[in-house]
Amino acid sequence: MAEPLRVGVAGLGTVGSAVVRILSAKAEELAARAGRPIVVTAVSAREKGRDRGLDLSRVAWHMDASQLARANDVDLVVELIGGAEGPARACVETAIEHGRPVVTANKALLAKHGVALARASEEKGVPIAFEAAVAGGIPIVKTLREGLAANNVSRVFGILNGTCNYILTRMEKDKIGFAECLADAQRLGYAEADPTFDVGGFDTAHKLALLASLAFGVEPDADGIYVEGIASITPLDLQMAEELGYRVKLLGVATRTDAGVEQRVHPSMLPKESAIARVDGVTNAVEIDADAVGALVLSGPGAGGDATASAVIADIVDIARGVTPPMFGLPAGKLRSPTRAPMGRHEGGYYIRLSVIDRPGAAAAIATRMAEQGISLKSIVQRGRESESDSAGGEPVQVVLITYATTEASLRIALDAIEADGHIDGAPQLIRIEKR
Amino acid sequence: MAEPLRVGVAGLGTVGSAVVRILSAKAEELAARAGRPIVVTAVSAREKGRDRGLDLSRVAWHMDASQLARANDVDLVVELIGGAEGPARACVETAIEHGRPVVTANKALLAKHGVALARASEEKGVPIAFEAAVAGGIPIVKTLREGLAANNVSRVFGILNGTCNYILTRMEKDKIGFAECLADAQRLGYAEADPTFDVGGFDTAHKLALLASLAFGVEPDADGIYVEGIASITPLDLQMAEELGYRVKLLGVATRTDAGVEQRVHPSMLPKESAIARVDGVTNAVEIDADAVGALVLSGPGAGGDATASAVIADIVDIARGVTPPMFGLPAGKLRSPTRAPMGRHEGGYYIRLSVIDRPGAAAAIATRMAEQGISLKSIVQRGRESESDSAGGEPVQVVLITYATTEASLRIALDAIEADGHIDGAPQLIRIEKR
Repeated sequence: MAEPLRVGVAGLGTVGSAVVRILSAKAEELAARAGRPIVVTAVSAREKGRDRGLDLSRVAWHMDASQLARANDVDLVVELIGGAEGPARACVETAIEHGRPVVTANKALLAKHGVALARASEEKGVPIAFEAAVAGGIPIVKTLREGLAANNVSRVFGILNGTCNYILTRMEKDKIGFAECLADAQRLGYAEADPTFDVGGFDTAHKLALLASLAFGVEPDADGIYVEGIASITPLDLQMAEELGYRVKLLGVATRTDAGVEQRVHPSMLPKESAIARVDGVTNAVEIDADAVGALVLSGPGAGGDATASAVIADIVDIARGVTPPMFGLPAGKLRSPTRAPMGRHEGGYYIRLSVIDRPGAAAAIATRMAEQGISLKSIVQRGRESESDSAGGEPVQVVLITYATTEASLRIALDAIEADGHIDGAPQLIRIEKR
Repeated sequence: MAEPLRVGVAGLGTVGSAVVRILSAKAEELAARAGRPIVVTAVSAREKGRDRGLDLSRVAWHMDASQLARANDVDLVVELIGGAEGPARACVETAIEHGRPVVTANKALLAKHGVALARASEEKGVPIAFEAAVAGGIPIVKTLREGLAANNVSRVFGILNGTCNYILTRMEKDKIGFAECLADAQRLGYAEADPTFDVGGFDTAHKLALLASLAFGVEPDADGIYVEGIASITPLDLQMAEELGYRVKLLGVATRTDAGVEQRVHPSMLPKESAIARVDGVTNAVEIDADAVGALVLSGPGAGGDATASAVIADIVDIARGVTPPMFGLPAGKLRSPTRAPMGRHEGGYYIRLSVIDRPGAAAAIATRMAEQGISLKSIVQRGRESESDSAGGEPVQVVLITYATTEASLRIALDAIEADGHIDGAPQLIRIEKR
């Protein structure tokens, strides 16, 4: 059997510890699959003393990840530090400079510096693999990069953040508000102390940028993504969605359109019976629509130490076997710079919830403003007041409109006019409907 | 750019024609992905004259697939003839003898001769790839062989035959019998003139043997699979399943048990809300349960020219790039010969439907026979007669029992005793319940 592949693991959190543990526990089988032993020879983390349940007695310890990346006894560097800059970036760049393959779960780093890293890695002839950076244990990177080589992908979309899906699922099931649900998720360890990155949609956006690159052969373009989080979703929206045959999910969606690549992250309504709509809790799921294969759906755990380590180790085994495809499927020089399809050009159906001040003519004025923009309404639902006696008070009533496909630009004009007319109280709630 | 990879395609049915068409239409992008051009230089099929909508003017035509496999202008052989013996086997063996990589969709060939072919291909140092042999366009082979290298798989199961799933879905929806539904499927082209291979479960068994090999590191063992088809399923069973919270699917299931590898193909009841239960029509879906990744579900088209060609071409691109993993994930010499877990040792819940001759003591006798084998009943449903006046006639009534987990051996003993007691009319209907 060939020489062992000596692995340095930078970052010993949940994922890093699981990688070290599984590489040791399954050494024999992994060697058979890889054609050579895979051995952890070095690790790096901030706190040396912490008990991680790992035997690190025969492993070199580096306080500095970049030092690990250039250590003489390391052939491959696993970067699990996280963050687009700082020690993670330095570690990956150092590894490449020294001609060492990199396996990383760092979506922020790749969404921002992916193309530069791909170029550097190609110049040095060493691979960077990142299965673990998107949708945890789901082999979506491999599927897009290798499994669908024969396809033109028209759309890739899905649930890429377990925290958001957990919150939306619980809000729906327990009929509780966003804030209460978030606090609960934090207590259970499903949400960070600072949840902005997750619930604001930014984590999903980083992952989407990588998926869009793999799917469409373009450079990752995280800055070109339209991003909305889930904080504005109310239990009433979820209930209305249910009544109208939809479920609300935070989706990342990348679509090839005539106007360019449309990338967006926002709460979406999906027909209840669609595969992605049915995915509950912390599970992730991705659908790929492509010309040859049709629709392909992958679902599984999007996070967790062992599931993410599963993706990291699959990459290590591939590299041990000499499998080194271009990072984003195509050589970096062949990735196109994506034309950004502006959000105003987005076409689709919309769910609009308005707090309408109940006075004569309000409904007619709203309908007129929609009609002026050529927007057809598929359904209109008014949530009546509890008792007749309230009817004279001029208190707002909730009116939900479902539109047929229109452009975002037209809809925004109509909503601005409705607001200017003074018939509604507060900003309209708008949730885009994702077609099957 | 490197030398072109010259491909010979043996078999120009729907899939073969799609392979030739897509390789030509997407030549440029595929070359970028593969690092070298991929060119079809030779084809082989029985009827030369037929119009397949392909320009074959610059392609060598071979009447004999084995001749194609040893032609001088062929670097890689795509075998799409089908069948475990005859020209398909000769073509693949010839290609390997001549040191040419093979891409095949031939599940029958691999289920029967897979180990011998894996050994021969390793001796010659040429790969055999077979993504298209299982679940059409779903990249399940790549996922098991490469994506889950870090995992011990405990179970792999799913809907692997679109014809059966189409029939069961329609029987359920339109409340029609198996024979009528089959005739319909034949008219629509979803079922062959001789449907035995599909509806008898044998096609599923071939695919399952390959999945089990990849999942558990064992030699494919199609002869060790317990196989039942769907012909015995009635609309009443589907209706009862619905009422009890289940759906009926023809599943292939391979499980790692203490007694060895359990492989079985039969109609199964799945909890309605499970991912696999929700898959309708000709779609295929596979769930993998594994220690690191948890549960992973892949669904997509299980057949069709373009979807299957997508899998064939992904394999070609991999080989063009030099990706040549061992055929079944591990080197042939490391595949274990599976210990077959006997079906009598199978443990699970059961749906039992009995035509009970309605006379005093029948129910008590049946319950006693179950209790004698230590089988607990989760529910008992009796389909009452339409009118009271029938009650004296001694006509059979339908009684459905749902058992808690028991062994198949115990259940068979109980059912034999119930039959011997003479309280039932005809053989019991038995459908195994697959746990989530």
